[in-house]
Amino acid sequence: MSDNRQLRLGTILHGASGNMSAWRHPAAIADASINFDFVKETALKAEQGKLDFLFVADGLYINEKSIPHFLNRFEPLTVLSALASVTTHLGLVGTLSTSYSEPFTVARQFASLDHLSKGRAGWNVVTSPLEGSAKNFSREQHPEHALRYRIADEYLDVVKGLWDSWEDGAFIRDKASGQFFDPEKLHTLNHHGDFFKVAGPLNISRTPQGRPIVFQAGASDDGKKLAARHADAIFTHHDTLEEAQYFYRDVKSQLKNHGRNDDDLKIFQGVSVIVGKDADDVENQYQATAALVSVTDALNYLGRYFEHHDFSQYPLDEPFPDIGDLGQNSFRSTTDEIKRNAHERHLTLRQVALEAASPRPRFAGTAQQVADGLQQWFESHAADGFIIQGGTPDTFPRFVDEVVPALQARGLFRTEYPGTTLRESLGLAEPVNQFS
Amino acid sequence: MSDNRQLRLGTILHGASGNMSAWRHPAAIADASINFDFVKETALKAEQGKLDFLFVADGLYINEKSIPHFLNRFEPLTVLSALASVTTHLGLVGTLSTSYSEPFTVARQFASLDHLSKGRAGWNVVTSPLEGSAKNFSREQHPEHALRYRIADEYLDVVKGLWDSWEDGAFIRDKASGQFFDPEKLHTLNHHGDFFKVAGPLNISRTPQGRPIVFQAGASDDGKKLAARHADAIFTHHDTLEEAQYFYRDVKSQLKNHGRNDDDLKIFQGVSVIVGKDADDVENQYQATAALVSVTDALNYLGRYFEHHDFSQYPLDEPFPDIGDLGQNSFRSTTDEIKRNAHERHLTLRQVALEAASPRPRFAGTAQQVADGLQQWFESHAADGFIIQGGTPDTFPRFVDEVVPALQARGLFRTEYPGTTLRESLGLAEPVNQFS
Repeated sequence: MSDNRQLRLGTILHGASGNMSAWRHPAAIADASINFDFVKETALKAEQGKLDFLFVADGLYINEKSIPHFLNRFEPLTVLSALASVTTHLGLVGTLSTSYSEPFTVARQFASLDHLSKGRAGWNVVTSPLEGSAKNFSREQHPEHALRYRIADEYLDVVKGLWDSWEDGAFIRDKASGQFFDPEKLHTLNHHGDFFKVAGPLNISRTPQGRPIVFQAGASDDGKKLAARHADAIFTHHDTLEEAQYFYRDVKSQLKNHGRNDDDLKIFQGVSVIVGKDADDVENQYQATAALVSVTDALNYLGRYFEHHDFSQYPLDEPFPDIGDLGQNSFRSTTDEIKRNAHERHLTLRQVALEAASPRPRFAGTAQQVADGLQQWFESHAADGFIIQGGTPDTFPRFVDEVVPALQARGLFRTEYPGTTLRESLGLAEPVNQFS
Repeated sequence: MSDNRQLRLGTILHGASGNMSAWRHPAAIADASINFDFVKETALKAEQGKLDFLFVADGLYINEKSIPHFLNRFEPLTVLSALASVTTHLGLVGTLSTSYSEPFTVARQFASLDHLSKGRAGWNVVTSPLEGSAKNFSREQHPEHALRYRIADEYLDVVKGLWDSWEDGAFIRDKASGQFFDPEKLHTLNHHGDFFKVAGPLNISRTPQGRPIVFQAGASDDGKKLAARHADAIFTHHDTLEEAQYFYRDVKSQLKNHGRNDDDLKIFQGVSVIVGKDADDVENQYQATAALVSVTDALNYLGRYFEHHDFSQYPLDEPFPDIGDLGQNSFRSTTDEIKRNAHERHLTLRQVALEAASPRPRFAGTAQQVADGLQQWFESHAADGFIIQGGTPDTFPRFVDEVVPALQARGLFRTEYPGTTLRESLGLAEPVNQFS
């Protein structure tokens, strides 16, 4: 490990922050997911803490059993664009699906966000886990898992090709001669693939970051392969240090297949955090938030991962039911983990549902203890950084005020931004234009 | 005419402002179409003048002959969202095509913009005139004109249905009981039409304006029909008072077919303006800007309206060539007008091209004279309002500083915003939720 290796930090918008019922917490802003004042305050707090980025998740299907803050939330590109003009250094990362969108539009919108933010755009590429999404997009059926990843792979080729339509410096804008651009630096993609035919060029210049940052969030084998080929960063989640280390080694080892180095892909573990003054305080904070989740809500929450399966049909206090292959075509890695965990620990349905809906934060303790945990995972190569999710509505400001300074004091985290772009914050090289 | 009838004003982002070569003007910001500081300054100037809205046009295909500021520009939804957080009263209207997008996504993004701006979003519905668009969206061919309008009609039904997914007040968020929403106020659309199958519900609540404002910009018969059924506002352009009056009467008369009143649809004439201290000053401003356009650029400009036809093959100083039906499937109303005008006035190709690329502003004169022209068109029912395009890069600030006060002094234009939403500025009623 290099002495200079620095960990990186993002935070995720997640309703009022905390579990699915955290909006009921006394300190919660109940309409947080559609409250721009809250979003802006969170972003400014993250920027105060010199965090790398704010991350916005997404989904394309809801029904009456969905998690409350999924029912009514900002669309990622619009809310990130609104943040672009009121922040200066914070990366702005949004989720968008390759299964239900057009690469020309998506390439444009993220490029536009990168220009608007002067180099702070990130796209979290997902393939849409929810079966129901097809019903909102005039499709007969949701493409199966492997097909979605083949589409995504080609999609990323198209988007990157479009982002390279104009070389740096293509726009001369010489008022005297009237030459607006250099035709030698304009490139028409003419992509003809299995899934897409896209001519180009894109109607926006190469962006301040060269290309926006590409995140990938799937943890399946297909997801890891896609990340190893295309992504600048991964957003993943593992419950144990060993699992995280295994994932980290596995993905990094795949980079060389694509002529890439370990440093070219940053792996972020999503971690829930509670910060308290002592163990009792932390436990009280956790219990107060967990108590807000009803069993009914927890069963609905669990069902969403399994193609909206109705778990209320099973006895609550008997072993987790055998539900066959449900979930294989949606949240594959998550559902595998839930089933394995239930089996190994002999959990009842009630236990599985409540644990899923209100998981114990990965790092809970005093600021120093939380910093210890992050440091351990970072230094033992379980992660290059973390995406922080507050375990309660009070957590995130406290994380910035108490844990960030602890990490800074240990020389693990920056005290100033290294530049103004997300790419600079993440320590990633500017990509070479494929046409130059 | 009611004495209380008030005219309304928007302005359009159009590169550096002025003709296609206005970026060469000494006062021009040459990279205006991708310069957020310029965009923000324009928006704040518009808001200072109490204008109703800022309008962003769009296109989905470029090639090396496109107008300079079309080659490299912000995508509408992202730039409008960025403006949402730095403005407070200005309507934010963006163009988006129903031919190359998904209604679920578009409904979400405009609803999100309406929430972010607290009720200032507008969607200018277009069907994409440019044949080349198909090549950027994996389509074999561009749908023909009538088909595009059939698609648009159904598309708007879907989007409006999705915007009504949640009734006002659907989100209760009662922390004590844990009830987040009222299931009676949630409606699933289940649209099954000729072109779209969209289940819903939308994952965002009914917006501050009830629904975002719908603009329509096509002037063909199909376009007028679409507007009469669906639109809150029309953005059109006519060269003469008589044509504008005819259009105005024609569209308003169609409203009753859909149970609507004259006041339910506001007709905006797009007008280019130059403000000067006297006639010489105005003429000098016009000539200085017109002189920036080369004949080559003018031929390219003209060609874009005719499916990127290459006009350089014809003699410049002979009568406008017979090019048959070219343009019928793209900018139909514009190309009809160009051909008719060339024929009636016996213009050469050079004249047609230069007039098209650098048209004389509709209203040019002193501030009082410009105000006279706007008043005449407004009072003679040629328009309910105007979308101002600066005839030179200097024009728009001068319009706000000099013409707006003249209109205010005549009692024709507001001195304060009537509320905070675009709907309030336009004097439009809140739409009834189709499910309530």
